[in-house]
Amino acid sequence: MNNSLPRTTIKELPQLAQRQLPQPVCVKGWVRTKRGNKAVCFVALNDGSTVHNIQIVIDKAQTDPKLLEQITTGAAIGVVGTLVASQGQGQEYEIQADEITIYGTSDPVRYPLQKKGHTLEFLREIAHLRPRTNTFAAVLRIRHNMAYAIHTFFHERGYFYLHTPIITSSDAEGAGQMFTVTTLDMNKLPLAKDGSVDYSKDFFGKHTSLTVSGQLEGELGAMALGGIYTFGPTFRAENSNTPRHLAEFWMVEPEVAFMDNEGNQDLAEAFTKHCLQWALDHCMDDLEFLAEHYDKELIERIRFVVERPFVRTTYTEGVAILEEAVRGGKKFEFPVYWGADLASEHERYLVEQHYNAPVIMTDYPKEIKAFYMKQNDDGKTVRGMDVLFPHIGEIIGGSERETDIDKLTARAQEVGIKDKDLWWYLDTRRYGSAPHAGFGLGFERLLLFVTGMTNIRDVIPFPRTPNNANF
Amino acid sequence: MNNSLPRTTIKELPQLAQRQLPQPVCVKGWVRTKRGNKAVCFVALNDGSTVHNIQIVIDKAQTDPKLLEQITTGAAIGVVGTLVASQGQGQEYEIQADEITIYGTSDPVRYPLQKKGHTLEFLREIAHLRPRTNTFAAVLRIRHNMAYAIHTFFHERGYFYLHTPIITSSDAEGAGQMFTVTTLDMNKLPLAKDGSVDYSKDFFGKHTSLTVSGQLEGELGAMALGGIYTFGPTFRAENSNTPRHLAEFWMVEPEVAFMDNEGNQDLAEAFTKHCLQWALDHCMDDLEFLAEHYDKELIERIRFVVERPFVRTTYTEGVAILEEAVRGGKKFEFPVYWGADLASEHERYLVEQHYNAPVIMTDYPKEIKAFYMKQNDDGKTVRGMDVLFPHIGEIIGGSERETDIDKLTARAQEVGIKDKDLWWYLDTRRYGSAPHAGFGLGFERLLLFVTGMTNIRDVIPFPRTPNNANF
Repeated sequence: MNNSLPRTTIKELPQLAQRQLPQPVCVKGWVRTKRGNKAVCFVALNDGSTVHNIQIVIDKAQTDPKLLEQITTGAAIGVVGTLVASQGQGQEYEIQADEITIYGTSDPVRYPLQKKGHTLEFLREIAHLRPRTNTFAAVLRIRHNMAYAIHTFFHERGYFYLHTPIITSSDAEGAGQMFTVTTLDMNKLPLAKDGSVDYSKDFFGKHTSLTVSGQLEGELGAMALGGIYTFGPTFRAENSNTPRHLAEFWMVEPEVAFMDNEGNQDLAEAFTKHCLQWALDHCMDDLEFLAEHYDKELIERIRFVVERPFVRTTYTEGVAILEEAVRGGKKFEFPVYWGADLASEHERYLVEQHYNAPVIMTDYPKEIKAFYMKQNDDGKTVRGMDVLFPHIGEIIGGSERETDIDKLTARAQEVGIKDKDLWWYLDTRRYGSAPHAGFGLGFERLLLFVTGMTNIRDVIPFPRTPNNANF
Repeated sequence: MNNSLPRTTIKELPQLAQRQLPQPVCVKGWVRTKRGNKAVCFVALNDGSTVHNIQIVIDKAQTDPKLLEQITTGAAIGVVGTLVASQGQGQEYEIQADEITIYGTSDPVRYPLQKKGHTLEFLREIAHLRPRTNTFAAVLRIRHNMAYAIHTFFHERGYFYLHTPIITSSDAEGAGQMFTVTTLDMNKLPLAKDGSVDYSKDFFGKHTSLTVSGQLEGELGAMALGGIYTFGPTFRAENSNTPRHLAEFWMVEPEVAFMDNEGNQDLAEAFTKHCLQWALDHCMDDLEFLAEHYDKELIERIRFVVERPFVRTTYTEGVAILEEAVRGGKKFEFPVYWGADLASEHERYLVEQHYNAPVIMTDYPKEIKAFYMKQNDDGKTVRGMDVLFPHIGEIIGGSERETDIDKLTARAQEVGIKDKDLWWYLDTRRYGSAPHAGFGLGFERLLLFVTGMTNIRDVIPFPRTPNNANF
């Protein structure tokens, strides 16, 4: 292959084409389709940089038939040729091939990803190959862009990315069931005198688990650096085989000192709008592909959120509206009453039917929220804050945090958390306590919204669910 | 407190001061020191946004003595006042306080971080509070900036951030001992017929562990998206209590299709220079603080790497140089011969004494490198690539990958990895195989170099080591 010509990605071709046509180019990628007639062969080549293929035109008379035979769906090839304006329909430009290199063939019988459409269910079985499909490549490019948007948003605000620990000996968060992490020989467990497993012999000298949230450690960071955010994997050992649950998923958790729950709402609104605007600005090709194939209203729905001020309402107001709707004949699957944990159907009714805008709901009954949320003076509610989106309901949950150490420990005791497990967390309230607030965003929840996918297993590269930890 | 005035971070004050002095400001943060005379009190306030404090000048005659008493090291306060040019030495401007709010007091007797310097060893015991010290705040701000530099570098090159799985059922990487992840009741383990633990009853239906590397999954991504990078936690269950080992650390692993080992070296050099230049451009205050207190040559050493072209040499050449040095009287702790895994002292000799430049060493004996490295035609060496830095030795390890499925499986068998555990990885070589290469950077290794810290436990917020998983 002509080594003097550097490789161009397919994403860069439009710029090249604008500058000058014809011009020599070198592209490398994987064959999506091959068709043609007696004289020429048309190859659709994709290199993962964009959802768009480049059409390669091969003059059969000038090409070794054995080489042509090896150009099958999935094969990796390199093409040196000339980028020219296309005579055919469907593309503005194409590459007339001068020289083709076969890097890797792909058996047309055995390669699992042939031209025909595959179901998402089937593709989950071959998660090691599905990034080669248009759908998953689009999802993964959007996933990258949303991660990048998250980092740019917080960096530009002066918040610091904090790596909170994955392995933890704390179970104070209480957000869900945890996975045990151990190096003990399971077939020869050391036992304590009472016959139970002796974790003092384990790697960390005690029982350890995988984190369910970085928030408590995030608060330690915020009370030192001012503003921090976490963005890392979190885990739930819940035996839930649903389209909304993963055992391993990524979470984003900003935490900011000297910020109250109003500031928290401002931050959450600016944050989600920044991410979605980023998708509109940087991922339109992929969004259009996903809209066309999976969800016609996808782009409209993203714009809906970006363009509208979020409506801010209290839980109490929200429940009153829902109760009014029920009295007016609206049927919900789950009951609505003050004190109930609202379901997705309730949240979506408020967003899609009542307000016709994204909603930030605040001041929840303390019984349905975590122990660390700041208690209001009414003795009943806490300064929680959930952001509710169309189509999916809750996308963000957060709160101002309780700063009063007595109220905090009393509430922790009520929910069964012992002071001795919280001493390090409580030190933030003992020494230089300050108002602070933060929230958590399930990254895959955001991706469901931005991609229009409906199963959370389809927005993470290698989903971990009950009985599935393949690849 | 005067709510009409928005809070300014201390990092933003220089810009404000340049625009106009005097001017009203509101700052909030934690008290570092308090001193004064009969008339005025000087408070050094820090809010985590920068290593620099702002001096608050309090007129004692105008201030409630009880409030003054509460202003002790560690207390959280808010100050509304006037930013003015400073009359005193040591600062260009200061804040004359009009109104002070105490958010949280800090008992002068019990607060562990008093004025006096603490040892790094002591601070590790209170990892939940150490981010409040200048040293750890500086390290964590640099850590954030290095993470951000990593994302910007790869994003701007069109590579996609890929979240490879944390929980894995694969142990083909063979990079080290692994932690078991389980939900089995350890006090009541289910047993198979042969009396061994029945992992089919476990959460994932088989034995699972924490990942030691995302590389194999990263290759799957590169063979679909063209270029990817991972950046996530990785784990080693090695019982090593050294200043260079962590059980949980963060790793960066780019993987790029259609890139050979030359391109890989170019990428590694551009990547490390980008990160270090970023530190010089964005973290100079923190670097100067760390240089002054821990490592006088820190900034010089960073510039040394940024400014010099990396010398590229083969392992065979490197060993010849080292053997020549030994013949000339140089003493090493570990022996040098062709086939030996070079130690840090050897790497540093080449970098610091022989070449006086960072070194990229290539083409290692296959026996000391991983099974997936591309074999050279000599039958002895593989296209590995290590980047060697002054002060620390190896900072990056990488290679071009073997594309030939027969060579790959033969080498895997030699090191005891079974085809059945690798079938999904081998599919990248079965279907559309292409040249590709990548490398791994231990993020904390980079941070040791950039911060001048000498113990790896001091560059991660919450270190996990044998017998330590606190906080």
